[in-house]
Amino acid sequence: MSSNATEERVLAAVGERRELVNEAIDEEVPMAEPQRLYEATRYLLEAGGKRLRPAVALLAAEALADVEPLSTEYRAFPALDEGSVDLMSAAVGLEVIQSFTLIHDDIMDDDDLRRGVPAVHEAYDTETAILAGDTLYSKAFELMTNTGAKPERGLEATRLLATTCTRICEGQALDVSFEHRSDILPEEYLEMIEFKTAVLYGAAAATPAVLMGADDDVVDALYQYGIDAGCAFQIQDDVLDLTVPSEELGKQRGSDLVEEKETLITLHARQHDVDIAGLVDTASLDDVTESDIDAAVSELEHVGSIKYAREMAEELVRESKERLEVLPDNEARGLLEDIADYLITRGY
Amino acid sequence: MSSNATEERVLAAVGERRELVNEAIDEEVPMAEPQRLYEATRYLLEAGGKRLRPAVALLAAEALADVEPLSTEYRAFPALDEGSVDLMSAAVGLEVIQSFTLIHDDIMDDDDLRRGVPAVHEAYDTETAILAGDTLYSKAFELMTNTGAKPERGLEATRLLATTCTRICEGQALDVSFEHRSDILPEEYLEMIEFKTAVLYGAAAATPAVLMGADDDVVDALYQYGIDAGCAFQIQDDVLDLTVPSEELGKQRGSDLVEEKETLITLHARQHDVDIAGLVDTASLDDVTESDIDAAVSELEHVGSIKYAREMAEELVRESKERLEVLPDNEARGLLEDIADYLITRGY
Repeated sequence: MSSNATEERVLAAVGERRELVNEAIDEEVPMAEPQRLYEATRYLLEAGGKRLRPAVALLAAEALADVEPLSTEYRAFPALDEGSVDLMSAAVGLEVIQSFTLIHDDIMDDDDLRRGVPAVHEAYDTETAILAGDTLYSKAFELMTNTGAKPERGLEATRLLATTCTRICEGQALDVSFEHRSDILPEEYLEMIEFKTAVLYGAAAATPAVLMGADDDVVDALYQYGIDAGCAFQIQDDVLDLTVPSEELGKQRGSDLVEEKETLITLHARQHDVDIAGLVDTASLDDVTESDIDAAVSELEHVGSIKYAREMAEELVRESKERLEVLPDNEARGLLEDIADYLITRGY
Repeated sequence: MSSNATEERVLAAVGERRELVNEAIDEEVPMAEPQRLYEATRYLLEAGGKRLRPAVALLAAEALADVEPLSTEYRAFPALDEGSVDLMSAAVGLEVIQSFTLIHDDIMDDDDLRRGVPAVHEAYDTETAILAGDTLYSKAFELMTNTGAKPERGLEATRLLATTCTRICEGQALDVSFEHRSDILPEEYLEMIEFKTAVLYGAAAATPAVLMGADDDVVDALYQYGIDAGCAFQIQDDVLDLTVPSEELGKQRGSDLVEEKETLITLHARQHDVDIAGLVDTASLDDVTESDIDAAVSELEHVGSIKYAREMAEELVRESKERLEVLPDNEARGLLEDIADYLITRGY
């Protein structure tokens, strides 16, 4: 299977759903009073984003219901037994949570840019950014309680959203704590990215199954699909930071090394006696040269650290696709498999 | 009715429940990994607090069920029809939301002290404080989805919590926006305090009714009890800031005037042509004297602004107590009435 063809299929499938998701975002998070607050809540949502998590949710529903993709109204999607579910409300809720975490993370990490525009705390101010994140947080729970699913399912999906958010906070706290440690184990790193990144993919894939009344084993399998794919996605991010030219990456290649951010790659290299702190001597992104990065990447290639990370991501993608075997074999399931592949074949 | 006797009854009733609430907080928000994150989430909860909102919730349940106060297990409280509800889970959820809002508000307002100890962002750092607040936020939703109430009631209570949190954020945003305006109308101010402060009292009083399966008119009446009492509480706070000696208040009397914070009192005075900016010439809390404040208070008394606020608070308390007439006439309802009285008779 050509990775170009996979990418094209994924981008088409995600793109078709993105328009619908964007319309729903406008309906569900409309401008309101106080104006400045709601402008700030909408600012990052309007700045773009692939809407990958909503796409995963909507495709999971289509695969599960065994319907032709895009043939069924997402706002009144048939449950597996009877009645219908507003899946779009849930999908928007997941994207809104993603947006809230980005806004707060950017404050915590002091990142000034996001999606090519100033971060919310730069475009507005830190107070407004905290509050915009907090507002999106509760909006997501409003959305998840308003799917019209059977109450026990709506409650279960809302509980899943709550535990997911707790995990995301724990993951961000672990990430911050790693900045002060040089003895992180690969399994600790994997737990961190699972919590910080992958659980929201898990929730995206599992939530439709919960709302539509699927069996527990299907819910669990979809959740694990998201966890595995989400972890692979994050590991691939770390690989791309070293291997994609700066101009394609949209930021300095090797910035993780310069900023001494631990990744699976540096953890592996450390275990193979590479002096990580000495890999790139320059302490600042302004001074680093492409040849500094080339030399560091060479050394990491030499001890097999980049290969290690790549293979780990590939293995996770294989596992994530296997999880989908609980679903009927149909086009939507194929697209979910493609998305898992895409997460590690994407160029940036 | 003596206000001292009322105060004693309220403090006893709240105190008896506080111990149970504190035990439940330890169970529901235990220490966990990552340690620094969970220390920070527990820090303010451990620093004290009256637990007034949980007390309102537990008393509302007792009044509604028409049982003798403290006679019934809060963790398995009988619903009005059948089955039982873990009211303590809901009550702790409400307190946890209160704690989250205080942590984030203190960052936004740059307040260094809270409950006599350094604010979380001072004791830890801003990043940890943002994340501790975010963690409590999702914990509260976990708690509200875990009451064991009938699913449609659990879902409804969770939805009420979500809309309440959205309102609180809007209230905080309004409060911040008022700093830049000198043309605020009293009704705008009342809306701000309703959103920022009173809705959580409304949710505290109404949530047990939702979970126990009370009729909509009872739910609505209890919600309005909380709204009216919560607004009275906030207005009384503004009165106390001017009328209670600094040593009892635990901060400089008149600090709202020095910091040019708008209150119902200054809004009324403004409408009666008082030059609010000139009331206290000193721009800093360090330089202000008691006689500066005395002079300002005299002028506010003279135009009737303090009386206006007091009477508004008294009227709101009267209305809040009337709302309780939907409940059986019993000891718990009497205590809810006492709490409303206490909110404006308390000394600080």
